[in-house]
Order: sequence, then C-alpha cells, then structure tokens
Amino acid sequence: MKPLLVTMGDAAGIGPEIIVKAFVAGELADAVVIGDAAVLRRAGAPMTAVIDHPDDFVAVPPGCLPLLPPPGLPEGLAALPRGRIDARNGAAAARCIEHAVALVRQGAGAAIVTAPIHKEAFAAAGVPYPGHTEMLQALAAGADGAPPPVRMMLANAELRVVLVTIHQSLRSAIDALSFEAVLDTLRIARRSAAAWGLEAPRIAVAGLNPHAGEGGLFGDEELRVIAPAVAAAVAEGIDARGPFPPDTVFMQARRGAFDLVVSMVHDHGLIAVKYLGVEEGVNVTLGLPFVRTSPDHGTAFDIAGRGVADASSLVAATRLARRLAR
Amino acid sequence: MKPLLVTMGDAAGIGPEIIVKAFVAGELADAVVIGDAAVLRRAGAPMTAVIDHPDDFVAVPPGCLPLLPPPGLPEGLAALPRGRIDARNGAAAARCIEHAVALVRQGAGAAIVTAPIHKEAFAAAGVPYPGHTEMLQALAAGADGAPPPVRMMLANAELRVVLVTIHQSLRSAIDALSFEAVLDTLRIARRSAAAWGLEAPRIAVAGLNPHAGEGGLFGDEELRVIAPAVAAAVAEGIDARGPFPPDTVFMQARRGAFDLVVSMVHDHGLIAVKYLGVEEGVNVTLGLPFVRTSPDHGTAFDIAGRGVADASSLVAATRLARRLAR
Repeated sequence: MKPLLVTMGDAAGIGPEIIVKAFVAGELADAVVIGDAAVLRRAGAPMTAVIDHPDDFVAVPPGCLPLLPPPGLPEGLAALPRGRIDARNGAAAARCIEHAVALVRQGAGAAIVTAPIHKEAFAAAGVPYPGHTEMLQALAAGADGAPPPVRMMLANAELRVVLVTIHQSLRSAIDALSFEAVLDTLRIARRSAAAWGLEAPRIAVAGLNPHAGEGGLFGDEELRVIAPAVAAAVAEGIDARGPFPPDTVFMQARRGAFDLVVSMVHDHGLIAVKYLGVEEGVNVTLGLPFVRTSPDHGTAFDIAGRGVADASSLVAATRLARRLAR
Repeated sequence: MKPLLVTMGDAAGIGPEIIVKAFVAGELADAVVIGDAAVLRRAGAPMTAVIDHPDDFVAVPPGCLPLLPPPGLPEGLAALPRGRIDARNGAAAARCIEHAVALVRQGAGAAIVTAPIHKEAFAAAGVPYPGHTEMLQALAAGADGAPPPVRMMLANAELRVVLVTIHQSLRSAIDALSFEAVLDTLRIARRSAAAWGLEAPRIAVAGLNPHAGEGGLFGDEELRVIAPAVAAAVAEGIDARGPFPPDTVFMQARRGAFDLVVSMVHDHGLIAVKYLGVEEGVNVTLGLPFVRTSPDHGTAFDIAGRGVADASSLVAATRLARRLAR
C-alpha cells in the first residue's frame, strides 16, 4: 500500500507542529511528510528519516518520521521566525505541493493531505495561485491544459457538505449560481462519492432563499436555476432531491436522511458543518484525479511555535484521506 | 401571578392537539387557553372549564383545562375538517390573538404563547396581516398608531439568534441591510434581554459574507454597514462585538462566548438554531410591549388530527415565556 503524502504547509505556521503532534500520537504511521527536515525538527519531531522516494517509507524504523524534501526547497527555512509572512516560506510550501502532486500522479502516493499555507506568503513568493485549491486544480490539468472543475467539500463525522460557490461576496455568489454550476456540483459529488465506494449517494440540495423560496414568494432561484438542475441530475441517474429549505436540510442529513448536502453558498453549509466544533472538520477537494484533504483551519500565525495548536483536524484529514483513497 | 395566555391557532392544524398534549403532560398548569371549547375537546382535552377572565383560572380544578373563548368567535368550528384551509378557522385564530393581546395589555396575562396559524386561512378570512408577527406588531401600536419595530428571535437551550431580515429573498435581504436595521436590531435585543433580567447581554454580530468579507475582498457590507452599526451600538453602551465570520460565530456562542447572536439573514441564524433538532426551538418576538413566544413550526395540516404531533416546541415555548415574563 502506498503512503499518504502530507505537505508541511507554511513553515511559519502551525503546520509542522500539528504534523509532529499527529505523528507522535501514532496517526501518521502510513504517511510521508513532504517538507523540510530542519523545520520538522524545530517543530519537535523526535527523529526524522530523510528519504528520496515514498516507497522507502517501509524501511523507516518506528518512531522515526519519514521525510521527503522536494528538490529545490529554499535553504535555511528553520531560521526564519514563526508567525511572520516570508516569501521563502511561501515558495517552500508551493514546492512541497508541486512535488506531492507529481508523486501521487506517478502512483507513488495514496492521497495528499495538505497542512495550511499562508495566502500572503504565496503572493510574496510570486506563486500564481491564491490558495491550495486553485494550485491543485492547475497541477491536475489534463493533456489539453484545461483544469478540471472542482468543488470544496467540508465533512465531519456526521455531515458532508459540497459547496457550489465559495470565496466571494454573498451577492456575487447569488449572481454566480447557474444551472450548469449546480448540475456540475451534483455530477462531481456523485463521481467523487463513487470513487469512495458510495455508488449511489443520496444527495440533498439546499435552496438559496428562506423556505427554499416559498414557491417563488421569497426569490426565484429555486424555480429558475436549482430545481431544473436537480431535475437534470435525476435524469442522469443521480439520486438528487430538493431544493429543500436551507434551515432544516442539514439537520435532516445529520440524522441520516442524506449522504451529502449541496449548499449554494459558503456559509449555509459551513455554519452547519462547524456548529458542533471545528476541530474535527475536514476540507476535501472534489473533482481532482486524486484524493486531497486538509484540516479546516489556517496557519494560525498567532499561536505558531507555542506548542498549543490542536492537531485534531489534521488527524481527521489523514483518516478521511485514507478512507477515501482505499 | 398572572397566567400565560395560549392561543389555539388554526383549529384545522395541530395547535389544539399539541396544547392538549402539553396540558396532559402538566406543562400548562399556569396557563389559560384562548380558543374554542369544542375544538379543544375534539383535540382530546379531558375536561374544559370555560372561564370569562384569566383571573378565574385559579378556581379551575386540577385536570380541567381553563378555556377562555373570545367574544365573537365563529360557531361550529369543531365541525370543520382538519387539514383544510377555511376562512372561519382563519377568523377564529385572529380573534383569539386579538383577545389575548387585549388581555395581556390590560395586565390580565403574563405573556402570550401562540399555536400556529395558517397564512392562507388568514388571507381567506380577510385578516389584513400575513402572519402573527405583523398582527401582533399592529395590535401593539402606541397611542400614535405607529407599530413598534420588532425582530424575530429563535432560541433553544444553547443558542439565541436575533434576525435582522426574515421572510424575503436572500438578494432582497442583502439590499435591505442598513446601518439603521442593524443598529435597531442591537437596541431591541439589548432592551429585550434587559426585560428578561439579562442587563448587559454579550451580543455577537455575524457578518453577511464568507469570512465576514475578508477585509472587503468578499463583499463590503461588513465595512459599509455592519461594523459602523456595531460601533454605534457600542457607543450607546451595548456590549456588541463583530462582525464575525458567520461560519464560526454560532458555534462560539453555543460554547458560551456570547448570550445572543445577531444574524443578518434568515438562514445563517436558523441553520444554526435548528441543526441539533427543531423540536425544542422557540420563536420569540422581540420589541413588543409584552412577551410572546411560539413553537418553531407550522400548522402541519398533513398530520393534524392524527394525534402524532410533537408538543415539544410548544412546551419549550411556554417554559421560555414563563422565564422571560417572570
């Protein structure tokens, strides 16, 4: 079995220390960290075994963290202060992601789990992507150079939510809703679930407006856009239902009525997923030709290096990656 | 101590039967039902004691439901089918509400708890209000005839959410957000909490956009409208904080960081309140000169008269009314 590939993220953030915490807790027994050895040691790694290829992880003795530094990693990262934006950390984080994608696309890794990067460090380094998702999408482009359509899924032990729109104003998200955007989301969700072994996921589609529009009285997006996309998905054999009133559909999914909920906007879905606590939330990018998960938090520069960061979400991300990639 | 006044709601809905269930469970020991005796008997009331004034409830023997029929109630309601819209049921529900408000404004009742009405039955009866809230607001108008500004609060055992906008499309809700609308909400929330004995409520204000706008990158309503309103509220001595990212503020309030959360739109707040189950949600109208609560569900015509309706939300509404009116 191939190992998980865990990218270290921004070296000035909490990524390295939560990786070490997870490793010490026995949660990374089948993982190789793509990162810098000195940074991981500074974060408290007991012992690191630097390897050249993921396959070598089987030879690493227990208690020793398998570490694969990507070629071209900037020098001296462990000497940079924590909690500060630095172009070298941005460049290093990007190199780790590139290398992890190359390895997993060669079949050398089972899945990618990414520790948090810092968007401003990315920008300072001239990395031409605002974040992980866009970078992974570009790296996953097919022979024609076209990046695959992807969607963000947030999942915890009781709820999986796939978002149609994400990081834009609520007003522009409403403008961005279209028949194609909703139908593509349903297709990606179904295809991804099938890849995890869930052949016919029961997908609930949340409406946009209060009471799912109350028959057009409180907005017509349900009638004009969402219901037709659900009908088209059903015609393709997808078990999609809705649109349902946003305020009760997540609760119903939590109780087991559905396997996935499609949410039109960022916060409908994320309020539900995070309501019981963010620690165990996992971010999954759907639509890539490989499994990629990440913890549901950022670099937390304010606490980086203090040893207080919580590794729960990273642990949940590695567990979910393992399950989805099986 | 004055009794709670419980209006029966639409006689064709589940209102009468959940009232009887709550009474039989011992939850209405200090309440007088404003409604029709035959309708309550049809709903399974063991015995009803028809009284003329709420004060008479003290003389009603235990096990006997104190019932006060408002003058001018239509005849023969108990002969109308359940689960059907009927103008007579709409008119009767409205009469019960009018009478309950008159009584509570005379000081004859501690608070009003309303069982669900049906909006279409209201309309069929020519009642000039779309629902409870608007009707109560009109009945609470001051000497100048101006209805007081009100806000809807949804509460359960662990979360209280006050909504700036409610029953309108998400797009028009965004258009309706204003400095005044947010500041008025904060004032109403603080004043209401003080009336309940919570003198300095810690109020969190949820943003509108993902990440509360991420500094203007994902929408400017936080910068233009919400933050200035929060600042103005703080200048008035209100302990208001935010705007916070919508996806984590409800979770933080649930954990005890805040007493109340102000939500810009219907579903941000209601997804959070309902996520753990709708049974115990209670709707409270803030800004009225009396306490009014109601269960967080409708008439449920599909199950009315079958004896399967769940009285939990009504029970929670009566308990909360009692606590808020003490």
